[in-house]
Amino acid sequence: MNARMFPTSSPSSPPGTTLLVLDADPLPRLGRLTGRVRVEHADASTLAEKLPSADALLVWDFASDAVRRAWPGEGPRPRWVHTASAGVDHLMCPELAASDTVVTNARGVFDQPIAEYVAALVLAMAKDLPRTWDLQRDREWRHRASQRVAGTRACVVGSGPIGRAIVRTLKALDITTALVGRTPRTGIHGPAELDRLTARADWVVCAAPLTEETRGMFDARRFGTMQPSARFINVGRGQLVVERALAEALSKRWIAGAALDVFEHEPLGPDSPLWQVPGLIVSPHMSGDTIGWRDELGTQFLELYDLWAAGKPLRNVVDKKRGYVPGH
Amino acid sequence: MNARMFPTSSPSSPPGTTLLVLDADPLPRLGRLTGRVRVEHADASTLAEKLPSADALLVWDFASDAVRRAWPGEGPRPRWVHTASAGVDHLMCPELAASDTVVTNARGVFDQPIAEYVAALVLAMAKDLPRTWDLQRDREWRHRASQRVAGTRACVVGSGPIGRAIVRTLKALDITTALVGRTPRTGIHGPAELDRLTARADWVVCAAPLTEETRGMFDARRFGTMQPSARFINVGRGQLVVERALAEALSKRWIAGAALDVFEHEPLGPDSPLWQVPGLIVSPHMSGDTIGWRDELGTQFLELYDLWAAGKPLRNVVDKKRGYVPGH
Repeated sequence: MNARMFPTSSPSSPPGTTLLVLDADPLPRLGRLTGRVRVEHADASTLAEKLPSADALLVWDFASDAVRRAWPGEGPRPRWVHTASAGVDHLMCPELAASDTVVTNARGVFDQPIAEYVAALVLAMAKDLPRTWDLQRDREWRHRASQRVAGTRACVVGSGPIGRAIVRTLKALDITTALVGRTPRTGIHGPAELDRLTARADWVVCAAPLTEETRGMFDARRFGTMQPSARFINVGRGQLVVERALAEALSKRWIAGAALDVFEHEPLGPDSPLWQVPGLIVSPHMSGDTIGWRDELGTQFLELYDLWAAGKPLRNVVDKKRGYVPGH
Repeated sequence: MNARMFPTSSPSSPPGTTLLVLDADPLPRLGRLTGRVRVEHADASTLAEKLPSADALLVWDFASDAVRRAWPGEGPRPRWVHTASAGVDHLMCPELAASDTVVTNARGVFDQPIAEYVAALVLAMAKDLPRTWDLQRDREWRHRASQRVAGTRACVVGSGPIGRAIVRTLKALDITTALVGRTPRTGIHGPAELDRLTARADWVVCAAPLTEETRGMFDARRFGTMQPSARFINVGRGQLVVERALAEALSKRWIAGAALDVFEHEPLGPDSPLWQVPGLIVSPHMSGDTIGWRDELGTQFLELYDLWAAGKPLRNVVDKKRGYVPGH
């Protein structure tokens, strides 16, 4: 970096300003904030006590719902909350939604990685790779004809940057795509068309935010309307899917296969029946996490911090009523 | 099909013309030839006896090397040989190469399927899917950061239609690609650049024809020059790779992973050590075979047959000295 191009100091917060960090392992690299703000750390057990005196909160432990449980109903509270995640369902509560606290998210960091991950799952299922691995383990040579993905149809549910990146990547593989979002607009179908589009899709990909409207949207009725050859992929949130209904749809061959990267309860316990549902691929909430991802999340937060300390408008501001950053 | 657009008969061969078919299961659908040519069938044990009286030979059993063994040195022989495969190494012999018999192949049928298969392997390795399957089997939730493919570098060896389709598909995933062929030309690097390009590639993909120049080209020396993070994929022919050298390169971690869809001896026997080489994905020569592939191969042969019977120039004519259809 050229010191003359970034000559002097980054903006500092007023003396006494406190940034509270809800920690996770590994800790964020916040060295750039040294001398600019007082950084305090909290875990789930100390968050409630420390929240009222914090000016800003970094939710680094994005798998925790401690914020929702600890958020002060009234009185002093952070003016800004940033979560190092795309979804905000784990921290949102009526009191936070009703407050004037600004919430920002990690919009952008996960788009391309998740799109690649979805493409990996689509191609793996089309080319029958899980079976290939089983046969390799058994030292068995068994040729099968597999599927072409070019010319197949995908319905991607969730029209945020992740859903749109998925559409771009699947289109690049010559898959015909339809994108469904809350509000119909150019290139995006509204919820009224969801039934029609999922019923004709070869691939149904869920990348929607978890809100009261979307909770449980993939249920027995919807799986029942899909094609027997269809595959379902969830990279959104576990609660978007009625897991028991999906397991039944697979067992009864209503659909041909599925892959879940997110679950109602994470981590999935060793006694969960989902590990062994036939035709179901289980992965541990990793679709967006590529090497260096935590550094990217840290860098993104520091960029937002600079805006905040300078009194400038923040980016990635969540519409707290809707539960996501409104789209472009 | 509109009968008026294809009004009367397709061209018939002169009476007494014989098409010999080296069979495999399932048989090709040659109903369209009924009444137009005498069709005889052979297997490896009867081919030598029947070859001299055949005018054309369809090598439907493309995994067999019976043609090479049975080809008549002199005297009567088919004027045309078509193989339902992209490679011709299994049938080519000096006598056939020196003869005026025309050899055609299945150029075009496998391009897009193989390109998708390579993309599936690249993404599966980047996203660590084989490990995900192992962990699922063990009911173990273990998050890992995986790799982004966008921005990585691939070197594709083999500049025929299959190699070019692989390049197109990898480019669509924002992978930077270099294509290497026998003859350098626009967009294609020559063999002199192979060392430099494989040494810097994240993905080395082999889709070359098997010729005397290419046999064993992926040997210990070449694996030794690759990056420790590199992955190697072979969808060409098994003999392009020194299998023992690849196994050693993986065991010693000279490279990070590999996938073989083709082998020196096929089918791979249950006692082959390759099944269990760490970091090696083994699949049973199926990369190009998508649902309906045999019908496509049959249709392609019938189109060529129409040209042949009408005395028109054939397409997909193999340069028998080089061992492949010269490129565009």
